[in-house]
Amino acid sequence: MDGATAPGVTTVTAAMRRALAASGEVHGSTSPNPAVGCVILDRDGAVAGVGATAPPGGPHAERAALAEAGDRARGGTAVVTLEPCNHTGRTPPCVDALLDAGVARVHAALADPNPVAAGGLERLRAAGVEVTLGTLAEEVARGPLRGWLHRQRTGRPHVTWKVATTLDGRVAAADGTSRWITGPGARAQVHDLRRRMDAIVAGTGTVLADDPALTARRPDGTLLDHQPLPVVVGHRDVPSGARLDRTDVLHLRTRDPGEVLTELTRRTVVDVLLEGGPTLAGAFVAAGLVDRVLVHLAPALLGAGPHALGDVGVGTIADIVRLHVDEVHRAGDDVVIDARPAPGPTGPPQ
Amino acid sequence: MDGATAPGVTTVTAAMRRALAASGEVHGSTSPNPAVGCVILDRDGAVAGVGATAPPGGPHAERAALAEAGDRARGGTAVVTLEPCNHTGRTPPCVDALLDAGVARVHAALADPNPVAAGGLERLRAAGVEVTLGTLAEEVARGPLRGWLHRQRTGRPHVTWKVATTLDGRVAAADGTSRWITGPGARAQVHDLRRRMDAIVAGTGTVLADDPALTARRPDGTLLDHQPLPVVVGHRDVPSGARLDRTDVLHLRTRDPGEVLTELTRRTVVDVLLEGGPTLAGAFVAAGLVDRVLVHLAPALLGAGPHALGDVGVGTIADIVRLHVDEVHRAGDDVVIDARPAPGPTGPPQ
Ligand SMILES: NC(=O)c1ccc[n+]([C@@H]2O[C@H](COP(=O)([O-])OP(=O)(O)OC[C@H]3O[C@@H](n4cnc5c(N)ncnc54)[C@H](OP(=O)(O)O)[C@@H]3O)[C@@H](O)[C@H]2O)c1
Ligand SMILES: NC(=O)c1ccc[n+]([C@@H]2O[C@H](COP(=O)([O-])OP(=O)(O)OC[C@H]3O[C@@H](n4cnc5c(N)ncnc54)[C@H](OP(=O)(O)O)[C@@H]3O)[C@@H](O)[C@H]2O)c1
Repeated sequence: MDGATAPGVTTVTAAMRRALAASGEVHGSTSPNPAVGCVILDRDGAVAGVGATAPPGGPHAERAALAEAGDRARGGTAVVTLEPCNHTGRTPPCVDALLDAGVARVHAALADPNPVAAGGLERLRAAGVEVTLGTLAEEVARGPLRGWLHRQRTGRPHVTWKVATTLDGRVAAADGTSRWITGPGARAQVHDLRRRMDAIVAGTGTVLADDPALTARRPDGTLLDHQPLPVVVGHRDVPSGARLDRTDVLHLRTRDPGEVLTELTRRTVVDVLLEGGPTLAGAFVAAGLVDRVLVHLAPALLGAGPHALGDVGVGTIADIVRLHVDEVHRAGDDVVIDARPAPGPTGPPQ
Repeated sequence: MDGATAPGVTTVTAAMRRALAASGEVHGSTSPNPAVGCVILDRDGAVAGVGATAPPGGPHAERAALAEAGDRARGGTAVVTLEPCNHTGRTPPCVDALLDAGVARVHAALADPNPVAAGGLERLRAAGVEVTLGTLAEEVARGPLRGWLHRQRTGRPHVTWKVATTLDGRVAAADGTSRWITGPGARAQVHDLRRRMDAIVAGTGTVLADDPALTARRPDGTLLDHQPLPVVVGHRDVPSGARLDRTDVLHLRTRDPGEVLTELTRRTVVDVLLEGGPTLAGAFVAAGLVDRVLVHLAPALLGAGPHALGDVGVGTIADIVRLHVDEVHRAGDDVVIDARPAPGPTGPPQ
C-alpha cells in the first residue's frame, strides 16, 4: 500500500505514524500496561478507526479502534504499534476481537516480548489473516513503548535523567538561583514529558533548594490531567509547608538508587523521570541505572554554581561514561540532546 | 540570472558560494587584509576565473580571478564577497582592474566598512557597470570575513573561544587527564579552524597541565601550511622542554585580557582563537571580549574534573551571560554549538 496512492487512501506507514501519535496521547495513563496505538483502515484503505490503550481495566487499543470502525473493519487492515495480545487478562485477547471483526490484514511494529501475551501474530496468521511485523519498528521502539519494553526486558522501570544546564554545565547560579535557565519552549517540553511518566524523582537537596512541585502543568500553570507519582529520595525531611509536603508524595528515606527502583517496581511504575539534582543523578549514573539522558542546554554561561552532575565514580578519562546521541533538536533558544548509555566497555554497567 | 538556467551557466548565488569557498581556502593567510573570494563569469554565465586574496603584498581576489579569466572577463560578471577596493595600498585599486578588464556587472555580498577603501561600487556604477550589493550577505558575514569586519568596526581582533566539554561541562577528568574528550571528527574541525586563525591563545595553567603544541595539524599529525601565532598568557614560565618552549611563541606575562588584545592588535592579528583554559576563558568572558563561542560537546559524562568555564563574575541567575545560537551541527558522535553573545542587557558588556 505504500507509494503513490489514491486520495483518501492511507499507507501502512502513515497509519503507523498515526497509531504512534495516538499512543503518545495516552502515554503515562496506562501503566503497567503498554501505551499502544491502533488504526483500522477499511477495505478501501481509508481510516475507519483510531484507538489507544485505556487506563488499566479499560479496553486495549485494538478494541477501541475496532469499536470506532464498526462494520467498516470487515476485510480491512489493522495497523498497531505492538503485536496484538493473545491472552485473557482483565480484558479478553485482542486477537479474538480482530478475528471477530473480520480484519483481513494486521501490521504490527514490534513483537510482544512478554511470553504470556505473545503469539498473537502467529494465531492471526493461522486463522488466515495476512500479517507483517516491523513497520517503523525503530521509531516505535523509541516512542511511548520504550519504558514498557525496558521493564519487560530488565524487570525494572526505565529511568530518564533530565537536566537543564548552561553550556558550561551549571544548573544554578553561585547563590543557588536557577529560575529560569532554559526558555519557555524547553519548559513546555518538560511538562509534556512529565505527564507521560509514572513517577518523578528528586533528591532532598533539590527539594530544599528549589521547593519544586513535581507536577505536570500547562503553560498557564494549571495541572494536566495525568499526574505522575512524586518521589523524594534522601534521609532529610521534606520541610512542612513545602510544595511537596503533600500526602500523595512518596518519600524514600534511602540513598540507594537500587532500593528506589525496587520500591517503584513494586508499585508497577514503568517510566521514571529523574529530575535531580546532581548528587542523586550522579548516584543513578554510577549505579548504571540511567537509561536515557535528556539534556536541555541553555545558550548561556554562568562560570560558577552547582554542576549538572555530581560524582559518578570516574577519576580518569579512560573511565569516562560514553553516551550515544539519538537526537539533537532546538526548542526555542535551547538545544535538546537526547542520548542513552553507549553500548560496550566505555559505558556504565548495564 | 537566478532560477532555471542552461547547463554550464552559473547563477550569481552559486558563484557567490564558490567565491566564499575560495576565500575559506586562504582564510588565515591574508591578515591584516580581508580574506576575499571572487568568481568571474563570462558573458555566457560560465565560470571563467576563481580567485582569493593572496598573502599581504600579493594580488587581491579580483585580480587573481581576472588573471585566470583573461579575455573572457570582457562583458562578463564579477561576483565578489566584499566590495572591490577603491584605493591604492600595496596594490592598485581593484576597481581599476575590473574596469580595465571590461566587466559589465559586479555583484558584491558586503560593503567595505573601511572608509579609505570604500566607494568601489559607486565608482563602478558611475563608470556604467551594473552593480548589486547583498547576495548571500548573512552567510558571507559569518564566514572568513567575520573577524576582519569585527576588527574594522571595533579596532580589536575577533575572539573565538573554543572549548571541548562533556555534556556535564567538564573539560578534563578529576586527575587532569583530558585526551580525548571529543572524537576525531570534532578534532579535525579544530585543526581546520586553527589554520584560519592569526593567533591561538592559552593560559599558563593549560600549558602546564596539557603541554599543548597549539599548531594546526593534519589527521596524520603533520603540520598544515599556515600556522597561527602561539600565545601564552600568565605570569608563570613555560617549562623548558615543553612543546611551547619555542622562539616563535609570544608569552604575555599578564592576566589582563584587554592587554592581550592590545598587544595582538599591534601585531595586526585579526582572528584570535582562545583555546583555554577555564580561568583565562572566564577572564575574557567577564571582560566582554569573547565574540564567538564554539562548544564541542562530547556525548559523555565525567561528574568531576575541571569546569569548562571559570569565574565570570556572575553570582545570581539574573546576571547569567546569554548567548545566541547561530548553528548546531553533529561532528561524528559530537555536537557542535556555534554561538555569540546575545545582544541586549543580559549579554556581557559589548
Ligand atoms: N537545572 C536543573 O535541571 C536542576 C534540577 C535539579 C536540581 N538542580 C539544582 O541542584 C542543586 C541541588 O543539588 P543537590 O545535589 O543537593 O540535589 P539532590 O541530588 O536533589 O539532593 C542531594 C541529597 O539527596 C540525598 N541523597 C539521595 N541519594 C543520595 C546518594 N546516593 N548520595 C548522596 N546523597 C543522596 C542526600 O540528602 P540526605 O542527607 O537527605 O540523604 C543529598 O544531600 C540546586 O541548586 C538545584 O537548583 C537543578
Ligand atoms: N577541553 C578543553 O577544551 C580544554 C582546553 C584548555 C584547558 N583545558 C583544561 O583546563 C585545565 C587548566 O585550567 P586552568 O584554568 O588552570 O587553565 P588556564 O586558564 O589556561 O590557565 C590559568 C592560569 O593562567 C594565568 N592567567 C592568565 N590570565 C588570568 C586571569 N585573568 N586570571 C587568573 N589567572 C590568569 C594564571 O597563571 P599565572 O599564575 O601564570 O599568571 C592562571 O593560573 C587543564 O585540566 C586542561 O586540561 C581543557
